[in-house]
Amino acid sequence: MVGKLKQNLLLACLVISSVTVFYLGQHAMECHHRIEERSQPLKLESTKTTVRTGLDIKANKTFAYHKDMPLIFIGGVPRSGTTLMRAMLDAHPDIRCGEETRVIPRILALKQMWSRSSKEKIRLDEAGVTDEVLDSAMQAFLLEIIVKHGEPAPYLCNKDPFALKSLTYLARLFPNAKFLLMVRDGRASVHSMISRKVTIAGFDLNSYRDCLTKWNRAIETMYNQCMEVGYKKCMLVHYEQLVLHPERWMRTLLKFLHIPWNHSVLHHEEMIGKAGGVSLSKVERSTDQVIKPVNVGALSKWVGKIPPDVLQDMAVIAPMLAKLGYDPYANPPNYGKPDPKILENTRRELLKNVLHQR
Amino acid sequence: MVGKLKQNLLLACLVISSVTVFYLGQHAMECHHRIEERSQPLKLESTKTTVRTGLDIKANKTFAYHKDMPLIFIGGVPRSGTTLMRAMLDAHPDIRCGEETRVIPRILALKQMWSRSSKEKIRLDEAGVTDEVLDSAMQAFLLEIIVKHGEPAPYLCNKDPFALKSLTYLARLFPNAKFLLMVRDGRASVHSMISRKVTIAGFDLNSYRDCLTKWNRAIETMYNQCMEVGYKKCMLVHYEQLVLHPERWMRTLLKFLHIPWNHSVLHHEEMIGKAGGVSLSKVERSTDQVIKPVNVGALSKWVGKIPPDVLQDMAVIAPMLAKLGYDPYANPPNYGKPDPKILENTRRELLKNVLHQR
Repeated sequence: MVGKLKQNLLLACLVISSVTVFYLGQHAMECHHRIEERSQPLKLESTKTTVRTGLDIKANKTFAYHKDMPLIFIGGVPRSGTTLMRAMLDAHPDIRCGEETRVIPRILALKQMWSRSSKEKIRLDEAGVTDEVLDSAMQAFLLEIIVKHGEPAPYLCNKDPFALKSLTYLARLFPNAKFLLMVRDGRASVHSMISRKVTIAGFDLNSYRDCLTKWNRAIETMYNQCMEVGYKKCMLVHYEQLVLHPERWMRTLLKFLHIPWNHSVLHHEEMIGKAGGVSLSKVERSTDQVIKPVNVGALSKWVGKIPPDVLQDMAVIAPMLAKLGYDPYANPPNYGKPDPKILENTRRELLKNVLHQR
Repeated sequence: MVGKLKQNLLLACLVISSVTVFYLGQHAMECHHRIEERSQPLKLESTKTTVRTGLDIKANKTFAYHKDMPLIFIGGVPRSGTTLMRAMLDAHPDIRCGEETRVIPRILALKQMWSRSSKEKIRLDEAGVTDEVLDSAMQAFLLEIIVKHGEPAPYLCNKDPFALKSLTYLARLFPNAKFLLMVRDGRASVHSMISRKVTIAGFDLNSYRDCLTKWNRAIETMYNQCMEVGYKKCMLVHYEQLVLHPERWMRTLLKFLHIPWNHSVLHHEEMIGKAGGVSLSKVERSTDQVIKPVNVGALSKWVGKIPPDVLQDMAVIAPMLAKLGYDPYANPPNYGKPDPKILENTRRELLKNVLHQR
C-alpha cells in the first residue's frame, strides 16, 4: 500500500513538473521572441539611420520618424496653387501637410550658401563639418519641424514654396521623399502677387517686368531640379489643370505618391479646421481662397492687367512660359474646359461674391 | 521487480524534470531582467528626451547622445584665448572640443532673428512652429554637429566664439551644459585682430575705435547672459590669468566642470594632432600660436599701438574694460607675475623667434 502511494506521489510530482516545464518553456520562447523583435533592425536604406520616436498624445501611442520615411514636398513659385494642393492632400485622412513652416526654406538657403562657396566648404571640411555631418544635422532639423509642427499621420508632407529651390538636396537627404512642383501661368502668379500685395523676397511688386523675370528664374531652377531627380520622384502639377479637372489629377497624383484613393480630397472645403483635415493659418495669404471649393475663378484675372510693353517682350522676359506649355502671346491661352462640378462651384462662388459683396 | 523498476524510472524522470524546471526558471528570470533593463528609462530630465546613438568606429561601440548630456560651451570675443582654452581642455583624455564648427553661431543667429521679431513669432506659432518645436529642431541640429564633427568622448565640448551670444538660449536647450566665457583686455583682442587682419563680421579692421566699440558691445552681451545663467553654469575665464597661472586656473576650471584632474591639460602642446588630443584646423587663425606651450608673449603687444585719441576716450568707448577689472587708463595694467614654468616657456619661445626668425 505504501509502495502504491509512493508510486502515485511520484506520478503526481512528475505530472506537475511536466506541466511546469511546458509552461516555462513556452514563456522562455515568448521572452526570446520579444527580445529578438526589439533587436530587429528596421528595414531601412542604411543601417546608420537614426530612428526617432514621438508621442501621439491623442492616440496615446508612439510613432517613429526617420530620414527614410515617405515624405511629400510641395512647392513652386508662390501664388501657383501650392496651398490648394496641400489643402486637398490634407483632406485625405492619411496625409498631413499643415501650414508653411517658414523656417525650412531659410535653413535650406543658409545651407546652400555654405555649399556654394568653395572656400567655405574647405574651411568646414577642415573643421570636421563634412557634407555627411551637415546632412545629418539638416535631416535632424527638418524632421523635427515637419513632424512636430502638426498632427501625426502615416504620410507627412511639407509645403513651403521655395523649399523646392533645394529640391535635389532634399531628394538626397530623404531618399524616399516625393516632390510635387506646382506650375502656373507666370502671368497669373505675378498678377496675383502684385494685386494682392503679397511680399516675396526679391520680387519688386511695383513692376510686372521684374516679377515675371524673377518668376522665370525661380521656376527654371525648380523645374530643372525636378527633371534632375526624375519622374519617379518629382511630378509637375499644373494649377490650371488641377482646378479644371481635379478628380483626374488627384487620381494621377495619389497613384504617383503610392497612396490609396480617398474621395475626401475632392471636398477639402468640408475638412477645414477638422481633426485629420485641413489646418489653416490665419496669417497665410491664401487662406481666404482655399476655404472655398475648387473653382476656376482665378485662371484669367490677369488678362488686361499687364502693361503693353511687358506683353510685347513676354517671350523674352519669361521663356519658361513656352517651355511649360503656356503661349506667351495668348492673352489668355485656352487652359481648357472645367469639369461640370467645377463649373458649378465656380458659378456658386461668383454668385456669393455678387450677393455678399465680399 | 517491475514495481521497483517503475519506481526508479519515475524517480529518474522526476529528477530530470526538476533539473529542467530549475534551469528554465533561471533562464526566464534572466530574460525578464534583460527586457527590464532595456525598458529602463534613462535618468533624464524629461521623459520626452530623445536619445540618439552613434557608432564609434574606432572603439567599435555605440554611444548615446541627447540634450541632457554634460556639454561644455567655450566662447567670447574672438582673439581672447578661446582656442587656447579649448586646446588645453582637448588635451584632457576625457574631453573633446575640436575645431570651430562655423555653422553653429550662424544657425543660432538665424534663430535669434526669428525670436526677436514679435510679428514673426506670431506667424510661426500660427504655423504650429512653436518655441517647443523650434527648440527641438535646434537641439537636434546642434547635437548632430557637435557630436559628429569630431571624435567621441565622455565630455563633448564646442568652441565657436560668438555662439555665446546665445548663451542663455543654449543653457535652456541643454540643461546640463556648462559655459566658459573667455574674457581678455579688449585692447589686446582688438590689437590682435587688427595687426593680424582677422576678419570678423561687423568689425572695421581699419579703426581701433570701431573695433573697441564692437568689442564692448559683444562682451557686454555675453557677460550679461553669463551672469544671468549663474555661477553654477557659467564661469568667466580671464585669458591673462589663465596664461600667468595655468595650473591654478585649470584646477579651478575642472572642478567647476566636475571633471577629474589630469595634468595633460598643462601640456597641450604635446598632444597636437594625436588621438584623444588636440585636433587643429589648418585654416583657423590661432593654430600657429596654440601649437606652442602656454606663454605670456601676447599679453602686452598692444601697448603703444593704439592711437592717442582712442586712448583718451578709452573709458567711454569701452566701459566693459573697467567692469571686467582692466584699468582703461593703464597702458598696460599689471596683469600679474607668471608662474616660473610659464616664464621659462615664454623665454624659450622668444628665443626661438629670434633664432629662427619666425
